[in-house]
Amino acid sequence: MKLKPTSLLIAGALMGAAVLPVQADPMVDLLKVLRDKGTISAEDYSLLANAAKAKEEKVAAEKEEMVSIVKETEKKSSLVTLDSKGLNFQSADKSFTANIGGRIHADYGFISDDYFDRNVANVNEVGNASKFRRARLGMEGTMFTNWLYGVEVNFGSNSSTEFTDVIIGYQGFENTTIKLGRHKMPSGLEELTSSNRISTMERSNPTNTFALGRYNGLTVATKGSNWTATGGTWLGDGVSAGENSDKDSDYGYAGRATFAPIQEKDSIVHLGLSYNHIKYEDTFSSDSLANNNGRLRARPNNNFFDERPVQVIYQGTESADTYGLEAATIQGPFSLQAEYFKRELNRKEFKDADVDGWYALATYTLTGETRGYRDGVMRTISPKNAVGKGGFGAWELVARYDELDVWDSSAAQEGLLVHSGSTNNNFNNLRGTKSEIWTIGVNWYVNDNIRFMANYVDADIKSDAANNAEGDIKAFLLRGQVAF
Amino acid sequence: MKLKPTSLLIAGALMGAAVLPVQADPMVDLLKVLRDKGTISAEDYSLLANAAKAKEEKVAAEKEEMVSIVKETEKKSSLVTLDSKGLNFQSADKSFTANIGGRIHADYGFISDDYFDRNVANVNEVGNASKFRRARLGMEGTMFTNWLYGVEVNFGSNSSTEFTDVIIGYQGFENTTIKLGRHKMPSGLEELTSSNRISTMERSNPTNTFALGRYNGLTVATKGSNWTATGGTWLGDGVSAGENSDKDSDYGYAGRATFAPIQEKDSIVHLGLSYNHIKYEDTFSSDSLANNNGRLRARPNNNFFDERPVQVIYQGTESADTYGLEAATIQGPFSLQAEYFKRELNRKEFKDADVDGWYALATYTLTGETRGYRDGVMRTISPKNAVGKGGFGAWELVARYDELDVWDSSAAQEGLLVHSGSTNNNFNNLRGTKSEIWTIGVNWYVNDNIRFMANYVDADIKSDAANNAEGDIKAFLLRGQVAF
Amino acid sequence: MKLKPTSLLIAGALMGAAVLPVQADPMVDLLKVLRDKGTISAEDYSLLANAAKAKEEKVAAEKEEMVSIVKETEKKSSLVTLDSKGLNFQSADKSFTANIGGRIHADYGFISDDYFDRNVANVNEVGNASKFRRARLGMEGTMFTNWLYGVEVNFGSNSSTEFTDVIIGYQGFENTTIKLGRHKMPSGLEELTSSNRISTMERSNPTNTFALGRYNGLTVATKGSNWTATGGTWLGDGVSAGENSDKDSDYGYAGRATFAPIQEKDSIVHLGLSYNHIKYEDTFSSDSLANNNGRLRARPNNNFFDERPVQVIYQGTESADTYGLEAATIQGPFSLQAEYFKRELNRKEFKDADVDGWYALATYTLTGETRGYRDGVMRTISPKNAVGKGGFGAWELVARYDELDVWDSSAAQEGLLVHSGSTNNNFNNLRGTKSEIWTIGVNWYVNDNIRFMANYVDADIKSDAANNAEGDIKAFLLRGQVAF
Repeated sequence: MKLKPTSLLIAGALMGAAVLPVQADPMVDLLKVLRDKGTISAEDYSLLANAAKAKEEKVAAEKEEMVSIVKETEKKSSLVTLDSKGLNFQSADKSFTANIGGRIHADYGFISDDYFDRNVANVNEVGNASKFRRARLGMEGTMFTNWLYGVEVNFGSNSSTEFTDVIIGYQGFENTTIKLGRHKMPSGLEELTSSNRISTMERSNPTNTFALGRYNGLTVATKGSNWTATGGTWLGDGVSAGENSDKDSDYGYAGRATFAPIQEKDSIVHLGLSYNHIKYEDTFSSDSLANNNGRLRARPNNNFFDERPVQVIYQGTESADTYGLEAATIQGPFSLQAEYFKRELNRKEFKDADVDGWYALATYTLTGETRGYRDGVMRTISPKNAVGKGGFGAWELVARYDELDVWDSSAAQEGLLVHSGSTNNNFNNLRGTKSEIWTIGVNWYVNDNIRFMANYVDADIKSDAANNAEGDIKAFLLRGQVAF
Repeated sequence: MKLKPTSLLIAGALMGAAVLPVQADPMVDLLKVLRDKGTISAEDYSLLANAAKAKEEKVAAEKEEMVSIVKETEKKSSLVTLDSKGLNFQSADKSFTANIGGRIHADYGFISDDYFDRNVANVNEVGNASKFRRARLGMEGTMFTNWLYGVEVNFGSNSSTEFTDVIIGYQGFENTTIKLGRHKMPSGLEELTSSNRISTMERSNPTNTFALGRYNGLTVATKGSNWTATGGTWLGDGVSAGENSDKDSDYGYAGRATFAPIQEKDSIVHLGLSYNHIKYEDTFSSDSLANNNGRLRARPNNNFFDERPVQVIYQGTESADTYGLEAATIQGPFSLQAEYFKRELNRKEFKDADVDGWYALATYTLTGETRGYRDGVMRTISPKNAVGKGGFGAWELVARYDELDVWDSSAAQEGLLVHSGSTNNNFNNLRGTKSEIWTIGVNWYVNDNIRFMANYVDADIKSDAANNAEGDIKAFLLRGQVAF
Repeated sequence: MKLKPTSLLIAGALMGAAVLPVQADPMVDLLKVLRDKGTISAEDYSLLANAAKAKEEKVAAEKEEMVSIVKETEKKSSLVTLDSKGLNFQSADKSFTANIGGRIHADYGFISDDYFDRNVANVNEVGNASKFRRARLGMEGTMFTNWLYGVEVNFGSNSSTEFTDVIIGYQGFENTTIKLGRHKMPSGLEELTSSNRISTMERSNPTNTFALGRYNGLTVATKGSNWTATGGTWLGDGVSAGENSDKDSDYGYAGRATFAPIQEKDSIVHLGLSYNHIKYEDTFSSDSLANNNGRLRARPNNNFFDERPVQVIYQGTESADTYGLEAATIQGPFSLQAEYFKRELNRKEFKDADVDGWYALATYTLTGETRGYRDGVMRTISPKNAVGKGGFGAWELVARYDELDVWDSSAAQEGLLVHSGSTNNNFNNLRGTKSEIWTIGVNWYVNDNIRFMANYVDADIKSDAANNAEGDIKAFLLRGQVAF
């Protein structure tokens, strides 16, 4: 651009350096002045000005190359992050991500068992014990942006299968996630809330008895800003050799819908409902209709028991329909949450059985934090002042009451088995039909990844069967938990 | 360098900035002109020129330091890559590498079983079921450039041991890899092709019966541009307490050689042969020569069965020699592949038994891709147009016929057991001696890491034993597979 | 700053570029000279000097921004390191760290068993076998600087539980580490030395019988420059259903203190002592006082045996007190190490039993390296000349003699069981009460991560019980080991 030197300089002086074009070079301006004043010849001006321009261009080119390398390097170096969200990797274009991590739930139980002592011979009364309720390692991620995968293995000592989630998924449709493999089927707010985030150490008996857990199947989950809808279907593992069976494994389908009419920062109202149908494997032998399809049983809300004090088996059960209702509200440091489940067991040759259960949970954060909520499930409490950052973490009080009643007096008139279910089928072992359980607890969230829990559980076992199998089991439980 | 100012400037003007020496500084050139013209004194010239040079040197030094830091940082940041080849790490000098990853094979089977129904009491007829055929996580890598290690754990539900490969290795000799630990012994093209890459959901019965799988031993593998040669030896796990045994575990040795006379981009011809010798543990009790050493059995080409419809036990087997022949060709989108196995069981006191099996596989890629091949094994198909990148992935049709015949009528005259092999040794369970199986399938390679498979398997079970144990098992199988 | 041009230039010329203030600009100096000489006007000088300063400021600002980005990037890129210390991650501020790795111990045993042959019917005599003594994968790290976590899973075939360490910990108190979860309780030098670093393939019988292994509990470990003190308490796993029991699981507490009076680079003297108390679960049935609490048994110092040739059960054992003494010295390439254990079993209704054992180990590094030692445990030998770096690695000779005597003749008068302990309780299986074992070995440390070991073990089994159960078991053992 051929500007008159004087005007260029005036412009520069008036507007400051920021306005000078990038190519502005004081050297060239000086050369112009010197040429105009005759101090240097036009030739010299030409040569020197070209040399100056060439040098500026070289400097600019080197700078651009450096900037480019630094940007590339910066992109490459942002592949790995390690923080309270865990160990995460992503490719430069973010089309591939991976996370490697796990969780540890170390439980310690001090139990006073006045049920098995009275009612059941040959089964241990649990006293004090330790247990790794969960100890998991896994890897998950995305590929080519839209595809998901995940494998998580559970080494905690209560698991018959060795993995939790094993999935291949697709998230290319807007707001929709499709998953294939072993993962939680849609059923129940307490069930779907991560075990790292549930308010008590164990989920309630109604949840553990009626909500679906993990199955190997297909789910399609879609959502909006304040609602979710999920449908799923699954197919069971098959039957191990030697059992008397006939063709197909268990299978089923399920659906859950949630809606949050109020969803603000410190005020949430959640409503949900779910339904599922299980078609049981047809394992009836010729003579008897006895099998475990219609077996309903529960622990006394602590996981140190393998034997269950509550257990009823409705023989001849072919399928089951389960309905669930959920309601919850979070108001600042308070929250209330309740669910109701009802199950109908459809039986062959015998009267169908209707059973149900419910729980109500209240929580209060002494340190003022609000429970998290997103996409239809509860999330964690993140301490405002973590231990080590000038604070005492977050402290939370919780209380829950749950009832499970698996007795249907009319259906129980026929085809009923109220026995141990243990391999020696000892009919002298008496089990209850109903549990009424109080759980009160204190949670200490040290930081975003670690919490300690203390629960006191008072489980009252009752029986509507003619076996007077009653008693109670009290437990004081402690947990150290880390998610990494 | 003392150049006459005018010549320097002329040189610069003629050749442009690139030719100017790095130290060329328009400022110094200007100073020279001004000095020559008398505008500034020689003293001023000295001082100003030195100052200019010092500034240029400082700028150059700062730039070099920055470049050095950026290069160091760039090296360090290239440690981690995450892409379709998985999550990989390497040290700056590449002497250490590591990979963390795994695979998921989620299978769903819909099975019509007309064999066990007719012939075998007390064994379940499999119907519809789901199964994690493989769910693996592992870590492997190199150390100090020449040393290898790897541990991979399999959580899929068909595995009695919990790991797949567990190795320490050395690759310091040119083109040679030595491995110690549990890994595949050299035997069979279909066997050595990764389960992520085999063309059908299950390998053929001859491969599963006669090829060696993974053992804990030592292999030495060497190769050239179109050939491979591998030798191995292994030692078994030992005998668990309580079984009647005498000293040594199984052991054996094996060798495999391959040659690709034609090995071009779209045209491959592969030839291979293998041999192995197994010396069985001497577990004979005093009276009987019955043990499982001479047990030959097979599934109906689908992994949902634990009980095998084909099973023969040649008692008194001390050792076995197995020969394998392989031939394959890949021509653009087509491929043909076949193997033949023959095994001789060497028996104590009874006549030796000769049995064999073979398969022939044909594949055709509708979307035109070519099957991969390298170092004597088949590799994957990489879709030209992956889903999500404007394409439908790669689609492949496959068909395989395999025959397994474990009946040697002459050897079978003596020391033969055609029974269930289940722990209660029920001789009323009849098994076949021969399988003839058609498998046809469609594979959909979504992208480099994910494929879906559908197989239809028609397994015809026949018997040359005097037990008329015949029938067939048809299965429709689906698989979702991800390698990460 | 208004300096007279001449003085500025003189200053610059005298002191060189380094002394020029950063803002010094030869261009501005030239402009001053030209202005002073009248070649350019004061106006022109103003404009040009401002333009030159503005340009310098812009260049400086760009440079600072680049430096800042490069430093950020450099920090971020130092997240990942992969070297002989393994695969390590850390956050930019180092408050989060993580390590993913594992180990493989691949063992091969060639065993000559002259004990079980003579004394025990129906138990296999082990001959030659392979075994993955350890095959582990795990992840551990720190969070928010002071918190620790770790999960490691063991897939080697000798483990009844599936994990090794599973911990949550805190290291915020100076020089103190608190751990909760499953990890080694404080007891024994050989026990606490990592299996990657012990001098022989198996720890001695006294260590394996008397030292504590891993339990689920709490430890507090503190240390100084040459001493350590650790206390711990634990609670057992509970009792599985079906066993006759009464309330509480095993629990116990333990302490260990070490002191290194001499701790120089090539000369170490280590002293240590430990104590632990185990309160056994009260599993006595009404009639008999027989249970496994007082069972003391040992292998012949090789892990290929599940059945133990040494075994005594003192019935009615309620608790046990164990005392341990440790002494070791490292002098350049030599080292000597010895431990003595004594255990008192406190019995209900029967006389208490006192048993003991000891070992003495000598090592010598042919290639001159010194054994490592830190914080009260032995550490590895790091080869001076690793294989591949111009050397043959490090070569070490080791020899150990250990004695275990679980016979207390006076206590053995009553409530004694010297039987197999196998489930069929066959009293015709005779076991010894004493082992005297020589282990000699050669270790080849290829590099910092890989070693090979060869051991020859001569185990003499004797019996002070009236059963003459004597014999010996010789074994030649090989191990390939990698830590990654």
